Amino acid sequence: MKSPLASLLWRSLRVYQVFGANTDVGKTIFTTLLARTAKKQWKDEHVNFLKPVSTGAGEEADDRYDLIENHPVKVFGSCLMINHEQTYSSLRTWCISQHTLSPIPSDEAFLAKCRAFATQCAAKDNGWLFMETAGGVHSPGPSGKTQADLYIPLRAPTLLVGDSRLGGISQTISAFESLRIRGYDVESVLLFKDNTYENYRYLAEYFKDNYGIPVSSLSVPPERDESPQRDEEAMQKYYERKDCEEVARQVLGLLHVNHSNRLSALDSMATKASQHIWYPFTQQSLVGPKEIMTIDSAHGDYFQTLAPSAPGNNTSAEAPVLRSSFDASASWWTQGLGHSNPKLTLAAAYAAGRYGHVMFASAIHQPAMALAETLLKGMQNPRLSRVFYSDNGSTGTEVAVKMGLRAARLRYDWGTDQKLGILGLKGAYHGDTMGAMDCAEPGIYNEKIEWYEGKGYWLDYPTVLCRNGEWSVTVADSLKESFGSGRAYATLNDIFDVEAREASGEHVIYEDYITSTLETLRAQGRKFGALMLEPIVLGAGGMEFVDPLFQRTLVNVVRRSPHLFGTATQPTSADDPNEWSGLPVIFDEVFTGLYRLGRFTPSSFLGVHPDISVHAKLLTGGLVPLCTTLASENIFKMFLSPDKTDALLHGHSYTAHPIGCQVALESVKEMQGMEERGAWDWAQARGWKGSEGQPPEQHKVDVWSTWPRELVESLSRLTDGVIGAWALGSVLAIHLKDSAGSGYSSNAALGLRERLNAGRTGGESGPWNVHSRVLGNVLYVMASQMTSEESVKQLSELLMESINKGARRQTDALSAVPRR
Amino acid sequence: MKSPLASLLWRSLRVYQVFGANTDVGKTIFTTLLARTAKKQWKDEHVNFLKPVSTGAGEEADDRYDLIENHPVKVFGSCLMINHEQTYSSLRTWCISQHTLSPIPSDEAFLAKCRAFATQCAAKDNGWLFMETAGGVHSPGPSGKTQADLYIPLRAPTLLVGDSRLGGISQTISAFESLRIRGYDVESVLLFKDNTYENYRYLAEYFKDNYGIPVSSLSVPPERDESPQRDEEAMQKYYERKDCEEVARQVLGLLHVNHSNRLSALDSMATKASQHIWYPFTQQSLVGPKEIMTIDSAHGDYFQTLAPSAPGNNTSAEAPVLRSSFDASASWWTQGLGHSNPKLTLAAAYAAGRYGHVMFASAIHQPAMALAETLLKGMQNPRLSRVFYSDNGSTGTEVAVKMGLRAARLRYDWGTDQKLGILGLKGAYHGDTMGAMDCAEPGIYNEKIEWYEGKGYWLDYPTVLCRNGEWSVTVADSLKESFGSGRAYATLNDIFDVEAREASGEHVIYEDYITSTLETLRAQGRKFGALMLEPIVLGAGGMEFVDPLFQRTLVNVVRRSPHLFGTATQPTSADDPNEWSGLPVIFDEVFTGLYRLGRFTPSSFLGVHPDISVHAKLLTGGLVPLCTTLASENIFKMFLSPDKTDALLHGHSYTAHPIGCQVALESVKEMQGMEERGAWDWAQARGWKGSEGQPPEQHKVDVWSTWPRELVESLSRLTDGVIGAWALGSVLAIHLKDSAGSGYSSNAALGLRERLNAGRTGGESGPWNVHSRVLGNVLYVMASQMTSEESVKQLSELLMESINKGARRQTDALSAVPRR
Repeated sequence: MKSPLASLLWRSLRVYQVFGANTDVGKTIFTTLLARTAKKQWKDEHVNFLKPVSTGAGEEADDRYDLIENHPVKVFGSCLMINHEQTYSSLRTWCISQHTLSPIPSDEAFLAKCRAFATQCAAKDNGWLFMETAGGVHSPGPSGKTQADLYIPLRAPTLLVGDSRLGGISQTISAFESLRIRGYDVESVLLFKDNTYENYRYLAEYFKDNYGIPVSSLSVPPERDESPQRDEEAMQKYYERKDCEEVARQVLGLLHVNHSNRLSALDSMATKASQHIWYPFTQQSLVGPKEIMTIDSAHGDYFQTLAPSAPGNNTSAEAPVLRSSFDASASWWTQGLGHSNPKLTLAAAYAAGRYGHVMFASAIHQPAMALAETLLKGMQNPRLSRVFYSDNGSTGTEVAVKMGLRAARLRYDWGTDQKLGILGLKGAYHGDTMGAMDCAEPGIYNEKIEWYEGKGYWLDYPTVLCRNGEWSVTVADSLKESFGSGRAYATLNDIFDVEAREASGEHVIYEDYITSTLETLRAQGRKFGALMLEPIVLGAGGMEFVDPLFQRTLVNVVRRSPHLFGTATQPTSADDPNEWSGLPVIFDEVFTGLYRLGRFTPSSFLGVHPDISVHAKLLTGGLVPLCTTLASENIFKMFLSPDKTDALLHGHSYTAHPIGCQVALESVKEMQGMEERGAWDWAQARGWKGSEGQPPEQHKVDVWSTWPRELVESLSRLTDGVIGAWALGSVLAIHLKDSAGSGYSSNAALGLRERLNAGRTGGESGPWNVHSRVLGNVLYVMASQMTSEESVKQLSELLMESINKGARRQTDALSAVPRR
Repeated sequence: MKSPLASLLWRSLRVYQVFGANTDVGKTIFTTLLARTAKKQWKDEHVNFLKPVSTGAGEEADDRYDLIENHPVKVFGSCLMINHEQTYSSLRTWCISQHTLSPIPSDEAFLAKCRAFATQCAAKDNGWLFMETAGGVHSPGPSGKTQADLYIPLRAPTLLVGDSRLGGISQTISAFESLRIRGYDVESVLLFKDNTYENYRYLAEYFKDNYGIPVSSLSVPPERDESPQRDEEAMQKYYERKDCEEVARQVLGLLHVNHSNRLSALDSMATKASQHIWYPFTQQSLVGPKEIMTIDSAHGDYFQTLAPSAPGNNTSAEAPVLRSSFDASASWWTQGLGHSNPKLTLAAAYAAGRYGHVMFASAIHQPAMALAETLLKGMQNPRLSRVFYSDNGSTGTEVAVKMGLRAARLRYDWGTDQKLGILGLKGAYHGDTMGAMDCAEPGIYNEKIEWYEGKGYWLDYPTVLCRNGEWSVTVADSLKESFGSGRAYATLNDIFDVEAREASGEHVIYEDYITSTLETLRAQGRKFGALMLEPIVLGAGGMEFVDPLFQRTLVNVVRRSPHLFGTATQPTSADDPNEWSGLPVIFDEVFTGLYRLGRFTPSSFLGVHPDISVHAKLLTGGLVPLCTTLASENIFKMFLSPDKTDALLHGHSYTAHPIGCQVALESVKEMQGMEERGAWDWAQARGWKGSEGQPPEQHKVDVWSTWPRELVESLSRLTDGVIGAWALGSVLAIHLKDSAGSGYSSNAALGLRERLNAGRTGGESGPWNVHSRVLGNVLYVMASQMTSEESVKQLSELLMESINKGARRQTDALSAVPRR
């Protein structure tokens, strides 16, 4: 099993990748010149060359790139190869070192080979490695993926050989842009000094003005001689020409300085950050430079982070500088389609190029309209007809609350002086803006905040957990009087079969409890403006998995009980999709929506529809902030009047910014497409489909997780350190035992987090680890919607191993626990 | 004077621009084939051809493109031209129709010529226009700007002719990406069916999978014959081949459908929006489809919007479908570097490609670090050392308030039960999230919002206005007792010379008023946690221009009077940059900061530094939401403790998202560069520099506006309808007389807005208008930091004309007034 690939960066080795603006632009000549000159200038160092993809048709080609080891600059006599190049689609020949592998390797295996070669080079004291690509930047590699996409994970700094021929200005700029938008750092542009077209003049100005990138030009090389020997001699002379060497020295000097600047910047960034950044949700007295993760780039599910130096000795020059860190918090639950997904980049850039940002109040543009339609359709909720755009989940829930409160106040004819609250669940979290905070019950995370004032009532609820291998609805001691002691189920599917459970009367105890609670509140004169729930999982509240039957029952009771909230002039029906009843029902789907739990909307698990729903985070696949608050027409209409001040007076400057809308449109459609194509079939097949002993087709309900059911059940059986575990969609949560008691003040999960953070050395692929966040005694690991089966397997192994290790020793005592 | 250019879209005319993946890829052959086939298929229509930039070296070249009028498909016999192509940097020949213009025209003049030609074509019943570009997508046009950038304002849908040669896969994809990231819609990719390389196979799959764009391939044309006559005959036969015509028919069919789909989408979008969008800050009972602006794209300072159909008759087929709409609200005050600025697009795409979004709590990445350092340095405020990232101005001010309140509470040893307020100015606005709303005094815009509770005290203040040609500090009746009746100054510079005014004792009446107000509040037992100001201009509060001396005095009094706020254990000094004194001073620079008023920070006008400052909107040049709250080290330290719950518990999922940080870094550096380069010298020279009669070098103070001083003074002399006007930086505000009284319920500005909205026909450049927002009786027009002198002149003329017209008739009566 291949471990994830760390980017190419060593202190000992300056690695540069050479891309060409086109085929036949002189990549090999430039690379040869640079390699030869490097060898002259850094006499004691080794200079290496790698051409991972060769496009030559036969023996001769491979021979010419007969690699390297102790003969770094051997055979660079001419550029014969260019004449042998063939198309990449019809002829996918390739080589690494002298080995020709067949069949065509996977991209991962291919890149691992490249990295392995670089690792060998890095082990040999100081040196250089020049990696020459084949053809143009987008010429396909072995698997058919274009090289600009293929090499992203290696992310070596780059030289671009420009095109000095007719049309070459265009080719060079376009090739550069293709690299740039994939996050490559092009450090220098090189091209021949053709005096007919003088592209170098134009390009030198262009790249300096626009990017501050230097362009170096080299005299045109001699015409090819038909005699190989004479040709080699002529090239030899060319390479040794004073002007050629001078250009090469200048370029190499720049690359040398850039390499050391890059390392200094990486080494110093955490210290600078600890001096000048004020971190969100972080007690900075507990976070020094050593605790700050320096991220160089990110790709797929992995960050590339500055690897910690080995304890006790100075940073070793040949140790990899970067390691792959699995983003197990999905960057605060935002990631869905992988970091730096080229499709999302192109979507963002298209919208930026077409609109930038444009005014949205009383205006409309295509991506905002298309996204609104896509979301309304995808929700399959007959109640929803309107989309309100804002910037993030917190502001989007504030919008939802403004909608709900107004609707309830008007319906029940309350004055503006009435104090209205939110009905919710204990541990609810809706964001950190003050209005969103006020929707959460008082607790240690808001009680010290000066303007916080919890406005509402929050019910207790039964939860779902796999304990000792058994899926059960768990009831806290305080609720045992109402709900009994909980119950075990054969499978998670059975717990989600809320209709069957309802048919068997399981919901009645919930109904009684909820109704009596509401009656008590009514008797106390409490007034409510909305029921607000995070469907299925309360994320920041500690990854609590709520019994879906409880939430379903809560919604139903509220809708059937308008009399418990106020006196309306018109009767309403709980089932009428055209009118809200009881209270406006708000689902905060910011964390759980849009395939996080495996479905477009988690409301489909409950079989009840909200009147208002809030969507963010995964909405943009994990790229930029955007939020949508969806609402019903009947709530929308309550804001209509001839008076401007009756409107929903909420707006953000960047409301419905086109980049966000376009990226969200692309993301949502991509995830819908994945569902249609069965992209998660492999995960669904791993123990989740159907109840035990029954064929899958007999089940209406399908719940599943990226994480294998067997893993969850195995984890839950580690009764030494584990209370229980659950997995749903891409989320895996492990509730750990903690002698100091669970909750936010707990430290139980920190030891496990540390062990995951230590990770593995990873051999030639470079070190890797897991960057996770904990919530009190809960450690969670979140996959993206793109995580592969192989990644999951690897992570599962590390998890089991780390927990077992932890069970054998005491957990570390640290006093701070991040919330998310 | 050229009027702004409307994009190319007519109902009668299908315009397609043909770009090439490289030079010599067959653009002319494809275009010829399409034009010939179109003529066969749509016999009654006219088919036009335009090659705005020709790269031919002599007579022959121009002759071959001897344009068109009634002979649209004449002379398309061969592709001789290709052999005559030359480099674009050394040979900038070009032609439009048969005219060769010299000297090289400006980009604007050049595009206007192109549009004029298309306008002629559109006037001739239904038809087609194919516009062929020269060379590759980034081959330079006449002025040296590359064609992909040059043609953005025309934004015709596009055909890309791919490269079928060796390396052509790469060339085609890169060229496509260069178009895509500039917002072009590439509707079809065309290339030759070369059977050696088979690029068409790879590309067909690639474009279908990634973009859903069809790729059509055409048999390779005959080799060129040396005899022109035989060559022409051979090509004639080629064009008439069944397979060639079939391909052309398919492509044309697609283009035809796309054109009509695009029109339908534009025509129906406002209706759809009125059914499904819930607009921010908008009373939708007053906004029907006709009031909704449909934006097709945006470039520079202009939207391209669906032009209203002429009243009374059906939409005329030859009328331009789009018009240029000057974005006079700068899209809710966000725009600085123009819509769809390619530099910002590339910055966004680079960050997307390098990181996507990555976790920020306890992590750091290069753009976040570099932006933090750039802002801290740019502010030149010795008090600031920390940067907290959030999503928008509203959340950023909430963060600032959380910082301020905590610092004050700990300093003055108040319990969490103490009700703390904000000290501010009347009409203050800090955003629409509930915490930000609570920082504003009660008024018609928040009094109906259920959870709103104004928390603070808001002082009245004197304002600055040019009235009847005279710059003066204006005092409202209620303040006359305290401040007298105001005062006139020779120039705006004199008003801003706060040190001189202070030296002459002008501030004493302010000091007395502020001190006595604070003493009264203290006597009432009121407690405050921060002084929070929008420096210089209260935007949403009605474009009120506050006397800078008043704000300066307010800050100074607060800092010198800790005894009026609480009892601190340690004495503090008002002038010590290492410690806040009295109250933490927060400057909300969201609207006025980052060059909006001509300077990096408006605090430099006041000569006092805040302890906390908030920056958004222009921060990203107008592309994506991002906010920074800058704070002093001494406030930061008040959150340090061993206890996690003492931290600033605020965080956003997309905190410091790399796209936002990278774009902001690019924007801020670009604006700093403009300042250094003197990019606004032209504006500063127009009456703003120095006091009258005194040489500029004698003035420490330099205030200026993009809008000429003469315009402001002229406007202020229109005493028929105008109370007064002011301009500063890019903002021009006109306070209008309104018999119904001023303020938010006013309608005075609506008539003027309507007249600006009607705009002008613009002739061959297409219609243009001004899209403005009003604030009660105030109409404002905001330039970007890129607006040209010519644009300002044009807009100034339209403004004067529209106001004069308004003075001659009654203003319309509409009951709703947008806030921003």
